Amino acid sequence: MAKQPIGFLDSGVGGLTVVKEALRQLPQEDIVFIGDQARLPYGPRPASQVQEFTWQLTNFLLKKQIKMLVFACNTATAEALEVIKPHLSIPVVGVILPGTRAAIKASHNGQIGVIATEGTIASNAYEKAIKLRDPDLTVVSLAAPKFVPLVESNQYQGELARKIVAETLAPLKETAIDTLILGCTHYPLLRPLIQDFMGPKVQLIDSGAEAVSEVSVLLDYFEIANHHLEGPRQTSFYTTASPEMFDQIAGDWLDLNEIHAEQVNVKESN
Amino acid sequence: MAKQPIGFLDSGVGGLTVVKEALRQLPQEDIVFIGDQARLPYGPRPASQVQEFTWQLTNFLLKKQIKMLVFACNTATAEALEVIKPHLSIPVVGVILPGTRAAIKASHNGQIGVIATEGTIASNAYEKAIKLRDPDLTVVSLAAPKFVPLVESNQYQGELARKIVAETLAPLKETAIDTLILGCTHYPLLRPLIQDFMGPKVQLIDSGAEAVSEVSVLLDYFEIANHHLEGPRQTSFYTTASPEMFDQIAGDWLDLNEIHAEQVNVKESN
Repeated sequence: MAKQPIGFLDSGVGGLTVVKEALRQLPQEDIVFIGDQARLPYGPRPASQVQEFTWQLTNFLLKKQIKMLVFACNTATAEALEVIKPHLSIPVVGVILPGTRAAIKASHNGQIGVIATEGTIASNAYEKAIKLRDPDLTVVSLAAPKFVPLVESNQYQGELARKIVAETLAPLKETAIDTLILGCTHYPLLRPLIQDFMGPKVQLIDSGAEAVSEVSVLLDYFEIANHHLEGPRQTSFYTTASPEMFDQIAGDWLDLNEIHAEQVNVKESN
Repeated sequence: MAKQPIGFLDSGVGGLTVVKEALRQLPQEDIVFIGDQARLPYGPRPASQVQEFTWQLTNFLLKKQIKMLVFACNTATAEALEVIKPHLSIPVVGVILPGTRAAIKASHNGQIGVIATEGTIASNAYEKAIKLRDPDLTVVSLAAPKFVPLVESNQYQGELARKIVAETLAPLKETAIDTLILGCTHYPLLRPLIQDFMGPKVQLIDSGAEAVSEVSVLLDYFEIANHHLEGPRQTSFYTTASPEMFDQIAGDWLDLNEIHAEQVNVKESN
């Protein structure tokens, strides 16, 4: 089992921020990634539809013989993880609890901000998870629906992005938060602009990167880490839309020269 | 099961650096701690004896109905965890893998230092764990046998401590490490002096504090976190030696006014 790949799913390229950390921290693990770019963003969709789409991505990855499944998408984690996890025999990791734990660890004044898609914010998943663990903490939540389209259209750098980040996050500048959870795996691509606007005193939590720590804990706990890689590690990338934009963003972001995503139809594969 | 306490064991007060993080990050969990001060340091003891003593501490904690056991001691983790873990039906967490993961995550140049007791260094546990996960990393290990007695005698601040830290760590200053694992749970009490000597460019990894992240992951994964604390959380501290020094160090370190450790004989309790 140790030699099987880890599967990552996302609505689009955002999950690559999780893959990037996995490539770095788990250099002996094979990775399969699928982004559902044809149907993004997931944020505004009803929960039942997010669950249906996430099941399709899950089934696609299960056919790749994955040993662990990572929901590298906050919306899918908020809406579908608890529904799908009980049906699988492999460990399933989401991004919300890792982000929650890291924020509780990082905050000194107990004032935590969360930015995420409308779906994740409406689900109240972060606030519930944080309050369940420490009822004394204060959570300020804010939907940032313009961020995902900005990233997926490869406009996550430059003046337009800077303007949208400032307009969106303005309400958070009035608060006393010392920690801000990037509650969508697309947002780390906007991290420099977000940090710039919020200032150096606010610590940003990349929930996706934190999820890799949980993956690592569970690989060890269940003794399914690959400690004997033969040859170079294998990575496979799939998208439900045209691979061109995917390859460009993925290549830039992952700092890999050659990424060739394969376009697949997850509806037919089921 | 969620309402049962988490057990922590150590050779002495060092494990309190782990408890401190647990108190902060897991405010709804009851905690039972035992330090084997009568028989410390564990570092120079043969593995078989460390295993015998650790079994005694484990059995003491099991009688307290713990739901999870934390080896808050690197020497016990290196020498006894793999021996004891298969015999227990509750999750067991050590400090070496969490420290390993955090160092791999933190290092930018792939040069990682480890300081620990003679026993932990001789076991080669950190180097093995790091290399198994990433063979390309370089590990520089150094035993620091004078640090535990310094802490246990409450001399971990001041000029003597500064001098011993400088003398001990001098060989590491010649290396290119950018990350240094504090591979003994006593060492975080010396953290300001260690950071001062190594300089701001070397990132210190507190393996004990990192273990609390693993505790949190496993509490969630096995759904045994306490989300409904009734009244103030319970903490119990036990030592195998006189509680006076223990109470003083614990009170200072944990920033708690009143700690009254109870002296117990773990040999008789078995």
